[in-house]
Amino acid sequence: MTDRELYERAVAVAQRAYAPYSSYLVGAAVLLRDGRVVEGVNVENAAYPLGICAEKSALSAAVVAGYGPGDVEAIGITASPCGGCRQWLHEFRLDRATYLHDGELVTRSAAELLPDTWSL
Amino acid sequence: MTDRELYERAVAVAQRAYAPYSSYLVGAAVLLRDGRVVEGVNVENAAYPLGICAEKSALSAAVVAGYGPGDVEAIGITASPCGGCRQWLHEFRLDRATYLHDGELVTRSAAELLPDTWSL
Amino acid sequence: MTDRELYERAVAVAQRAYAPYSSYLVGAAVLLRDGRVVEGVNVENAAYPLGICAEKSALSAAVVAGYGPGDVEAIGITASPCGGCRQWLHEFRLDRATYLHDGELVTRSAAELLPDTWSL
Amino acid sequence: MTDRELYERAVAVAQRAYAPYSSYLVGAAVLLRDGRVVEGVNVENAAYPLGICAEKSALSAAVVAGYGPGDVEAIGITASPCGGCRQWLHEFRLDRATYLHDGELVTRSAAELLPDTWSL
Repeated sequence: MTDRELYERAVAVAQRAYAPYSSYLVGAAVLLRDGRVVEGVNVENAAYPLGICAEKSALSAAVVAGYGPGDVEAIGITASPCGGCRQWLHEFRLDRATYLHDGELVTRSAAELLPDTWSL
Repeated sequence: MTDRELYERAVAVAQRAYAPYSSYLVGAAVLLRDGRVVEGVNVENAAYPLGICAEKSALSAAVVAGYGPGDVEAIGITASPCGGCRQWLHEFRLDRATYLHDGELVTRSAAELLPDTWSL
Repeated sequence: MTDRELYERAVAVAQRAYAPYSSYLVGAAVLLRDGRVVEGVNVENAAYPLGICAEKSALSAAVVAGYGPGDVEAIGITASPCGGCRQWLHEFRLDRATYLHDGELVTRSAAELLPDTWSL
Repeated sequence: MTDRELYERAVAVAQRAYAPYSSYLVGAAVLLRDGRVVEGVNVENAAYPLGICAEKSALSAAVVAGYGPGDVEAIGITASPCGGCRQWLHEFRLDRATYLHDGELVTRSAAELLPDTWSL
Protein backbone atom coordinates (compact mmCIF):
# COMPACT_ATOMS: atom_id res chain seq x y z
CA MET A 1 0.00 0.00 0.00
CA THR A 2 1.43 3.37 -0.97
CA ASP A 3 1.30 6.44 1.27
CA ARG A 4 -1.22 7.97 -1.14
CA GLU A 5 -3.47 4.92 -0.87
CA LEU A 6 -3.23 5.09 2.91
CA TYR A 7 -4.25 8.73 2.77
CA GLU A 8 -7.20 7.80 0.53
CA ARG A 9 -8.33 5.22 3.09
CA ALA A 10 -8.30 8.02 5.65
CA VAL A 11 -10.41 10.23 3.38
CA ALA A 12 -12.94 7.45 2.87
CA VAL A 13 -13.39 6.59 6.54
CA ALA A 14 -13.67 10.27 7.57
CA GLN A 15 -17.32 10.13 6.50
CA ARG A 16 -18.03 8.11 9.61
CA ALA A 17 -16.63 10.68 12.03
CA TYR A 18 -18.86 11.80 14.89
CA ALA A 19 -18.27 15.53 14.79
CA PRO A 20 -21.57 17.32 15.44
CA TYR A 21 -19.88 20.23 17.24
CA SER A 22 -17.14 21.24 14.79
CA SER A 23 -18.60 19.62 11.66
CA TYR A 24 -14.96 18.90 10.89
CA LEU A 25 -14.70 15.26 9.84
CA VAL A 26 -11.27 13.67 10.22
CA GLY A 27 -10.16 10.20 9.20
CA ALA A 28 -6.98 8.25 9.80
CA ALA A 29 -5.66 4.93 8.50
CA VAL A 30 -2.76 3.10 10.10
CA LEU A 31 -0.53 0.67 8.18
CA LEU A 32 0.84 -2.07 10.41
CA ARG A 33 4.18 -3.66 9.60
CA ASP A 34 2.44 -6.93 8.69
CA GLY A 35 0.43 -5.14 6.00
CA ARG A 36 -2.86 -4.84 7.88
CA VAL A 37 -4.69 -1.50 7.86
CA VAL A 38 -6.72 -0.15 10.79
CA GLU A 39 -8.91 2.95 10.63
CA GLY A 40 -10.02 5.74 12.94
CA VAL A 41 -12.19 8.86 13.04
CA ASN A 42 -12.57 11.79 15.39
CA VAL A 43 -15.25 11.39 18.05
CA GLU A 44 -16.37 14.63 19.65
CA ASN A 45 -18.20 15.23 22.91
CA ALA A 46 -20.46 18.03 24.10
CA ALA A 47 -17.69 18.65 26.64
CA TYR A 48 -15.11 19.51 23.98
CA PRO A 49 -11.94 18.47 25.88
CA LEU A 50 -13.30 14.95 26.28
CA GLY A 51 -13.34 14.19 22.55
CA ILE A 52 -10.68 12.16 20.76
CA CYS A 53 -8.91 12.60 17.43
CA ALA A 54 -8.92 10.23 14.48
CA GLU A 55 -5.26 9.28 14.96
CA LYS A 56 -5.90 8.15 18.54
CA SER A 57 -8.99 6.28 17.41
CA ALA A 58 -6.97 4.39 14.76
CA LEU A 59 -3.98 3.66 16.98
CA SER A 60 -6.16 2.47 19.87
CA ALA A 61 -7.91 0.11 17.42
CA ALA A 62 -4.46 -1.25 16.53
CA VAL A 63 -3.74 -1.83 20.22
CA VAL A 64 -7.06 -3.65 20.68
CA ALA A 65 -6.07 -5.84 17.72
CA GLY A 66 -2.86 -6.82 19.51
CA TYR A 67 -0.32 -4.34 18.14
CA GLY A 68 1.87 -1.88 20.03
CA PRO A 69 4.72 0.60 19.71
CA GLY A 70 7.10 -0.56 16.97
CA ASP A 71 4.40 -2.46 15.07
CA VAL A 72 3.04 0.53 13.14
CA GLU A 73 4.78 1.64 9.96
CA ALA A 74 2.78 4.61 8.71
CA ILE A 75 -0.38 6.66 9.06
CA GLY A 76 -2.50 8.52 6.54
CA ILE A 77 -4.55 11.43 7.91
CA THR A 78 -6.98 13.78 6.20
CA ALA A 79 -5.25 16.80 7.78
CA SER A 80 -2.10 17.82 9.62
CA PRO A 81 -2.08 16.09 13.03
CA CYS A 82 -2.57 18.18 16.18
CA GLY A 83 0.28 18.28 18.65
CA GLY A 84 -1.38 15.75 20.94
CA CYS A 85 -1.54 13.18 18.14
CA ARG A 86 2.07 13.87 17.15
CA GLN A 87 2.98 12.71 20.64
CA TRP A 88 1.16 9.45 19.93
CA LEU A 89 3.02 8.99 16.62
CA HIS A 90 6.22 9.37 18.64
CA GLU A 91 5.04 6.94 21.34
CA PHE A 92 4.15 4.30 18.76
CA ARG A 93 7.38 4.92 16.82
CA LEU A 94 5.80 5.34 13.40
CA ASP A 95 8.16 5.77 10.45
CA ARG A 96 6.03 8.39 8.72
CA ALA A 97 2.75 10.28 8.45
CA THR A 98 1.07 11.42 5.23
CA TYR A 99 -1.55 14.16 5.23
CA LEU A 100 -2.94 17.04 3.24
CA HIS A 101 -1.29 20.35 4.10
CA ASP A 102 -1.91 23.59 2.21
CA GLY A 103 -3.49 21.61 -0.61
CA GLU A 104 -0.54 19.27 -1.02
CA LEU A 105 0.08 15.71 0.15
CA VAL A 106 3.14 15.68 2.43
CA THR A 107 4.98 12.89 4.26
CA ARG A 108 6.91 13.55 7.47
CA SER A 109 8.69 11.46 10.07
CA ALA A 110 7.50 11.51 13.67
CA ALA A 111 10.74 13.30 14.62
CA GLU A 112 10.14 16.01 12.02
CA LEU A 113 6.64 16.55 13.38
CA LEU A 114 7.77 16.81 16.99
CA PRO A 115 11.36 18.08 17.19
CA ASP A 116 13.16 18.00 20.55
CA THR A 117 10.70 15.63 22.19
CA TRP A 118 11.88 13.35 24.97
CA SER A 119 13.17 9.80 24.56
CA LEU A 120 10.89 7.03 25.78
CA MET B 1 -25.37 -11.63 25.61
CA THR B 2 -25.84 -11.01 29.30
CA ASP B 3 -24.30 -8.11 31.19
CA ARG B 4 -22.00 -10.55 32.93
CA GLU B 5 -20.82 -11.96 29.62
CA LEU B 6 -20.17 -8.44 28.38
CA TYR B 7 -18.12 -7.76 31.49
CA GLU B 8 -16.17 -10.97 30.89
CA ARG B 9 -15.37 -9.81 27.36
CA ALA B 10 -13.98 -6.63 28.90
CA VAL B 11 -11.84 -8.64 31.31
CA ALA B 12 -10.44 -10.75 28.47
CA VAL B 13 -9.51 -7.84 26.19
CA ALA B 14 -7.90 -5.87 29.04
CA GLN B 15 -4.79 -8.00 28.58
CA ARG B 16 -4.11 -6.05 25.41
CA ALA B 17 -4.09 -2.63 27.09
CA TYR B 18 -1.06 -0.41 26.53
CA ALA B 19 -0.49 0.84 30.05
CA PRO B 20 3.26 0.98 30.70
CA TYR B 21 2.96 4.01 33.00
CA SER B 22 0.23 2.95 35.42
CA SER B 23 0.42 -0.83 34.84
CA TYR B 24 -3.35 -0.60 35.27
CA LEU B 25 -4.93 -2.61 32.45
CA VAL B 26 -8.51 -1.68 31.61
CA GLY B 27 -10.84 -3.34 29.11
CA ALA B 28 -14.26 -2.41 27.80
CA ALA B 29 -16.79 -4.21 25.59
CA VAL B 30 -19.69 -2.44 23.94
CA LEU B 31 -22.91 -4.22 22.96
CA LEU B 32 -24.56 -2.65 19.93
CA ARG B 33 -28.33 -2.82 19.53
CA ASP B 34 -27.91 -5.20 16.57
CA GLY B 35 -26.05 -7.68 18.79
CA ARG B 36 -22.53 -6.92 17.63
CA VAL B 37 -19.80 -6.46 20.25
CA VAL B 38 -16.87 -4.03 19.92
CA GLU B 39 -13.93 -3.91 22.31
CA GLY B 40 -11.52 -1.32 23.68
CA VAL B 41 -8.55 -0.92 26.02
CA ASN B 42 -6.81 1.98 27.68
CA VAL B 43 -3.87 3.41 25.73
CA GLU B 44 -1.50 5.52 27.78
CA ASN B 45 1.07 8.07 26.69
CA ALA B 46 4.29 9.32 28.28
CA ALA B 47 2.45 12.66 28.45
CA TYR B 48 -0.22 11.34 30.79
CA PRO B 49 -3.10 13.69 29.81
CA LEU B 50 -2.84 12.54 26.19
CA GLY B 51 -3.82 8.94 26.92
CA ILE B 52 -7.30 7.52 26.35
CA CYS B 53 -9.50 5.21 28.40
CA ALA B 54 -10.85 1.81 27.38
CA GLU B 55 -14.43 3.08 27.14
CA LYS B 56 -13.44 5.75 24.60
CA SER B 57 -11.40 3.19 22.69
CA ALA B 58 -14.41 0.86 22.44
CA LEU B 59 -16.93 3.55 21.56
CA SER B 60 -14.67 5.10 18.93
CA ALA B 61 -14.29 1.65 17.37
CA ALA B 62 -18.10 1.48 17.22
CA VAL B 63 -18.16 4.85 15.44
CA VAL B 64 -15.55 3.69 12.92
CA ALA B 65 -17.77 0.65 12.29
CA GLY B 66 -20.66 2.95 11.42
CA TYR B 67 -22.55 3.26 14.70
CA GLY B 68 -23.42 6.39 16.66
CA PRO B 69 -25.37 7.73 19.62
CA GLY B 70 -28.50 5.66 20.12
CA ASP B 71 -26.97 2.52 18.57
CA VAL B 72 -25.23 1.30 21.71
CA GLU B 73 -27.16 -0.69 24.28
CA ALA B 74 -24.66 -1.50 27.01
CA ILE B 75 -21.03 -1.54 28.04
CA GLY B 76 -19.03 -3.87 30.24
CA ILE B 77 -15.94 -2.40 31.89
CA THR B 78 -13.32 -3.96 34.15
CA ALA B 79 -13.65 -1.05 36.62
CA SER B 80 -15.87 1.89 37.51
CA PRO B 81 -15.71 4.43 34.65
CA CYS B 82 -13.93 7.74 35.23
CA GLY B 83 -16.01 10.89 34.97
CA GLY B 84 -14.76 11.65 31.46
CA CYS B 85 -16.00 8.30 30.20
CA ARG B 86 -19.35 8.72 31.97
CA GLN B 87 -19.81 11.78 29.79
CA TRP B 88 -19.27 9.58 26.74
CA LEU B 89 -21.85 7.05 27.99
CA HIS B 90 -24.28 9.97 28.23
CA GLU B 91 -23.35 11.28 24.77
CA PHE B 92 -23.88 7.86 23.19
CA ARG B 93 -27.09 7.30 25.18
CA LEU B 94 -26.24 3.86 26.53
CA ASP B 95 -28.91 2.07 28.53
CA ARG B 96 -26.50 0.67 31.10
CA ALA B 97 -22.94 -0.01 32.19
CA THR B 98 -21.73 -3.06 34.11
CA TYR B 99 -18.45 -3.04 36.02
CA LEU B 100 -16.69 -4.37 39.06
CA HIS B 101 -17.01 -2.06 42.07
CA ASP B 102 -15.82 -2.96 45.58
CA GLY B 103 -15.60 -6.59 44.52
CA GLU B 104 -19.15 -6.78 43.21
CA LEU B 105 -20.56 -6.62 39.69
CA VAL B 106 -22.94 -3.64 39.45
CA THR B 107 -25.10 -2.29 36.64
CA ARG B 108 -26.00 1.40 36.41
CA SER B 109 -27.75 3.64 33.91
CA ALA B 110 -25.85 6.54 32.33
CA ALA B 111 -28.10 8.94 34.26
CA GLU B 112 -27.26 7.26 37.57
CA LEU B 113 -23.57 7.57 36.80
CA LEU B 114 -23.77 11.24 35.89
CA PRO B 115 -26.66 12.93 37.71
CA ASP B 116 -27.63 16.48 36.74
CA THR B 117 -25.74 16.46 33.45
CA TRP B 118 -26.93 18.61 30.57
CA SER B 119 -29.33 17.55 27.82
CA LEU B 120 -27.81 17.07 24.36
CA MET C 1 -18.73 33.65 51.53
CA THR C 2 -22.01 31.88 50.75
CA ASP C 3 -22.43 29.31 48.01
CA ARG C 4 -24.51 31.84 46.09
CA GLU C 5 -21.75 34.42 46.30
CA LEU C 6 -19.25 31.85 45.10
CA TYR C 7 -21.51 31.11 42.14
CA GLU C 8 -21.76 34.84 41.41
CA ARG C 9 -17.98 35.07 41.35
CA ALA C 10 -18.02 32.29 38.75
CA VAL C 11 -20.57 34.18 36.67
CA ALA C 12 -18.45 37.34 36.77
CA VAL C 13 -15.18 35.71 35.74
CA ALA C 14 -16.82 33.73 32.91
CA GLN C 15 -16.60 36.86 30.79
CA ARG C 16 -12.87 36.24 30.49
CA ALA C 17 -13.21 32.72 29.07
CA TYR C 18 -11.38 31.97 25.82
CA ALA C 19 -14.09 30.09 23.96
CA PRO C 20 -13.97 31.12 20.29
CA TYR C 21 -15.06 27.67 19.08
CA SER C 22 -18.13 26.98 21.20
CA SER C 23 -18.92 30.56 22.25
CA TYR C 24 -19.87 28.91 25.52
CA LEU C 25 -18.27 30.92 28.33
CA VAL C 26 -17.80 29.05 31.61
CA GLY C 27 -16.49 30.40 34.89
CA ALA C 28 -15.57 28.73 38.16
CA ALA C 29 -14.60 30.03 41.60
CA VAL C 30 -12.97 27.89 44.24
CA LEU C 31 -13.27 28.62 47.97
CA LEU C 32 -10.21 27.47 49.90
CA ARG C 33 -10.55 26.41 53.52
CA ASP C 34 -8.59 29.48 54.63
CA GLY C 35 -11.19 31.75 52.98
CA ARG C 36 -9.25 32.63 49.86
CA VAL C 37 -11.03 32.46 46.49
CA VAL C 38 -9.34 31.43 43.22
CA GLU C 39 -10.99 31.70 39.81
CA GLY C 40 -10.92 29.86 36.50
CA VAL C 41 -12.40 29.92 33.00
CA ASN C 42 -12.58 27.48 30.12
CA VAL C 43 -9.78 27.79 27.58
CA GLU C 44 -10.50 26.17 24.23
CA ASN C 45 -8.16 25.12 21.47
CA ALA C 46 -8.60 24.69 17.73
CA ALA C 47 -7.90 21.02 18.43
CA TYR C 48 -10.97 20.60 20.61
CA PRO C 49 -9.77 17.76 22.87
CA LEU C 50 -6.80 19.87 23.97
CA GLY C 51 -8.91 22.54 25.67
CA ILE C 52 -9.50 22.73 29.41
CA CYS C 53 -12.57 23.44 31.49
CA ALA C 54 -13.09 26.29 33.97
CA GLU C 55 -13.02 23.95 36.97
CA LYS C 56 -9.59 22.61 36.04
CA SER C 57 -8.39 26.15 35.40
CA ALA C 58 -9.50 27.24 38.89
CA LEU C 59 -8.18 24.18 40.70
CA SER C 60 -4.81 24.33 38.93
CA ALA C 61 -4.54 27.99 40.00
CA ALA C 62 -5.12 26.83 43.58
CA VAL C 63 -2.31 24.29 43.21
CA VAL C 64 0.05 26.96 41.83
CA ALA C 65 -0.83 29.06 44.88
CA GLY C 66 0.28 26.21 47.15
CA TYR C 67 -2.96 24.36 47.88
CA GLY C 68 -3.78 20.71 47.26
CA PRO C 69 -6.37 17.99 47.83
CA GLY C 70 -8.11 18.60 51.15
CA ASP C 71 -7.54 22.36 51.07
CA VAL C 72 -10.55 23.22 48.90
CA GLU C 73 -13.95 23.59 50.52
CA ALA C 74 -16.33 24.45 47.70
CA ILE C 75 -16.65 25.46 44.05
CA GLY C 76 -19.14 27.67 42.24
CA ILE C 77 -19.61 26.96 38.53
CA THR C 78 -21.77 28.66 35.93
CA ALA C 79 -23.07 25.27 34.74
CA SER C 80 -23.24 21.61 35.71
CA PRO C 81 -19.68 20.20 35.64
CA CYS C 82 -18.72 17.71 32.94
CA GLY C 83 -17.73 14.24 34.05
CA GLY C 84 -14.03 14.98 33.69
CA CYS C 85 -14.28 17.87 36.11
CA ARG C 86 -16.32 15.83 38.56
CA GLN C 87 -13.31 13.51 38.77
CA TRP C 88 -11.20 16.54 39.74
CA LEU C 89 -13.69 17.53 42.45
CA HIS C 90 -13.32 14.01 43.81
CA GLU C 91 -9.50 14.11 43.57
CA PHE C 92 -9.36 17.42 45.45
CA ARG C 93 -11.95 16.21 48.00
CA LEU C 94 -14.25 19.22 47.78
CA ASP C 95 -17.18 19.32 50.17
CA ARG C 96 -19.62 20.72 47.63
CA ALA C 97 -20.25 22.27 44.22
CA THR C 98 -22.87 24.90 43.42
CA TYR C 99 -24.05 25.52 39.86
CA LEU C 100 -27.02 26.47 37.77
CA HIS C 101 -29.01 23.47 36.58
CA ASP C 102 -32.35 23.70 34.77
CA GLY C 103 -32.61 27.34 35.83
CA GLU C 104 -32.11 26.62 39.51
CA LEU C 105 -29.08 26.95 41.77
CA VAL C 106 -28.19 23.50 43.18
CA THR C 107 -25.52 22.31 45.59
CA ARG C 108 -24.16 18.76 45.47
CA SER C 109 -21.36 16.83 47.16
CA ALA C 110 -18.55 15.36 45.05
CA ALA C 111 -19.86 11.88 45.92
CA GLU C 112 -23.35 12.75 44.69
CA LEU C 113 -21.89 14.01 41.41
CA LEU C 114 -19.81 10.90 40.83
CA PRO C 115 -21.36 7.88 42.50
CA ASP C 116 -19.39 4.62 42.70
CA THR C 117 -16.05 6.21 41.88
CA TRP C 118 -12.85 4.66 43.20
CA SER C 119 -11.12 5.53 46.48
CA LEU C 120 -7.84 7.44 46.17
CA MET D 1 13.33 39.36 32.22
CA THR D 2 15.66 37.09 30.23
CA ASP D 3 14.68 33.71 28.89
CA ARG D 4 17.00 32.12 31.43
CA GLU D 5 15.27 33.97 34.27
CA LEU D 6 11.89 32.85 32.96
CA TYR D 7 13.14 29.27 32.93
CA GLU D 8 14.37 29.69 36.50
CA ARG D 9 10.91 30.87 37.54
CA ALA D 10 9.54 27.67 36.02
CA VAL D 11 12.04 25.58 37.98
CA ALA D 12 11.09 27.31 41.22
CA VAL D 13 7.32 26.90 40.84
CA ALA D 14 7.64 23.23 39.79
CA GLN D 15 7.96 22.35 43.48
CA ARG D 16 4.24 23.04 43.80
CA ALA D 17 3.16 20.57 41.13
CA TYR D 18 0.54 17.99 42.08
CA ALA D 19 2.07 14.90 40.51
CA PRO D 20 1.52 11.95 42.86
CA TYR D 21 1.20 9.46 40.00
CA SER D 22 4.28 10.20 37.90
CA SER D 23 6.34 12.00 40.59
CA TYR D 24 7.41 14.15 37.64
CA LEU D 25 7.14 17.80 38.72
CA VAL D 26 6.81 20.32 35.88
CA GLY D 27 6.72 24.09 36.13
CA ALA D 28 6.03 26.81 33.57
CA ALA D 29 6.28 30.59 33.65
CA VAL D 30 4.66 32.80 31.03
CA LEU D 31 5.95 36.29 30.21
CA LEU D 32 3.17 38.61 29.09
CA ARG D 33 3.94 41.44 26.68
CA ASP D 34 3.30 43.98 29.46
CA GLY D 35 6.06 42.42 31.56
CA ARG D 36 3.87 40.47 33.97
CA VAL D 37 4.75 36.85 34.72
CA VAL D 38 2.18 34.10 35.39
CA GLU D 39 3.07 30.61 36.58
CA GLY D 40 1.72 27.09 36.20
CA VAL D 41 2.37 23.50 37.29
CA ASN D 42 1.18 20.09 36.16
CA VAL D 43 -1.87 18.77 37.98
CA GLU D 44 -2.40 15.04 37.66
CA ASN D 45 -5.48 12.95 38.26
CA ALA D 46 -5.99 9.31 39.22
CA ALA D 47 -7.62 9.03 35.79
CA TYR D 48 -4.44 9.91 33.93
CA PRO D 49 -5.98 11.43 30.77
CA LEU D 50 -7.83 13.99 32.89
CA GLY D 51 -4.67 15.69 34.18
CA ILE D 52 -3.30 18.94 32.79
CA CYS D 53 0.22 20.09 31.98
CA ALA D 54 2.09 23.04 33.50
CA GLU D 55 1.96 25.05 30.27
CA LYS D 56 -1.84 24.85 30.16
CA SER D 57 -2.00 25.73 33.84
CA ALA D 58 0.11 28.87 33.24
CA LEU D 59 -1.69 29.96 30.08
CA SER D 60 -5.12 29.46 31.60
CA ALA D 61 -4.03 31.63 34.55
CA ALA D 62 -3.09 34.31 32.01
CA VAL D 63 -6.56 34.05 30.46
CA VAL D 64 -8.22 34.36 33.89
CA ALA D 65 -6.11 37.50 34.42
CA GLY D 66 -7.53 39.01 31.24
CA TYR D 67 -4.95 38.08 28.60
CA GLY D 68 -5.43 36.16 25.37
CA PRO D 69 -3.74 35.02 22.17
CA GLY D 70 -1.24 37.66 21.08
CA ASP D 71 -0.63 38.91 24.61
CA VAL D 72 1.96 36.30 25.56
CA GLU D 73 5.59 36.82 24.56
CA ALA D 74 7.45 33.82 25.92
CA ILE D 75 7.30 30.76 28.16
CA GLY D 76 9.90 29.04 30.29
CA ILE D 77 9.32 25.34 30.99
CA THR D 78 11.30 22.85 33.06
CA ALA D 79 11.21 20.33 30.19
CA SER D 80 10.44 20.04 26.48
CA PRO D 81 6.70 20.65 26.00
CA CYS D 82 4.47 17.73 24.99
CA GLY D 83 2.72 17.96 21.65
CA GLY D 84 -0.57 19.00 23.23
CA CYS D 85 1.06 22.00 24.86
CA ARG D 86 2.84 22.94 21.65
CA GLN D 87 -0.61 23.34 20.14
CA TRP D 88 -1.43 25.80 22.93
CA LEU D 89 1.76 27.78 22.26
CA HIS D 90 0.60 28.02 18.66
CA GLU D 91 -2.95 29.01 19.64
CA PHE D 92 -1.67 31.78 21.93
CA ARG D 93 0.92 32.91 19.34
CA LEU D 94 3.93 32.92 21.62
CA ASP D 95 7.20 34.19 20.18
CA ARG D 96 9.35 31.58 21.90
CA ALA D 97 9.68 28.81 24.45
CA THR D 98 12.76 28.09 26.58
CA TYR D 99 13.28 24.72 28.24
CA LEU D 100 15.89 22.22 29.27
CA HIS D 101 16.56 19.60 26.60
CA ASP D 102 19.34 17.01 26.80
CA GLY D 103 20.96 19.02 29.60
CA GLU D 104 21.04 22.26 27.64
CA LEU D 105 18.78 25.32 27.73
CA VAL D 106 17.20 25.80 24.29
CA THR D 107 14.86 28.42 22.87
CA ARG D 108 12.48 27.64 20.01
CA SER D 109 9.65 29.42 18.21
CA ALA D 110 6.15 27.94 18.28
CA ALA D 111 6.49 27.23 14.55
CA GLU D 112 9.73 25.31 15.07
CA LEU D 113 8.06 23.21 17.76
CA LEU D 114 5.03 22.37 15.63
CA PRO D 115 5.93 22.45 11.93
CA ASP D 116 3.11 22.24 9.35
CA THR D 117 0.34 23.03 11.80
CA TRP D 118 -2.82 24.72 10.59
CA SER D 119 -3.46 28.46 10.49
CA LEU D 120 -5.96 29.80 13.01
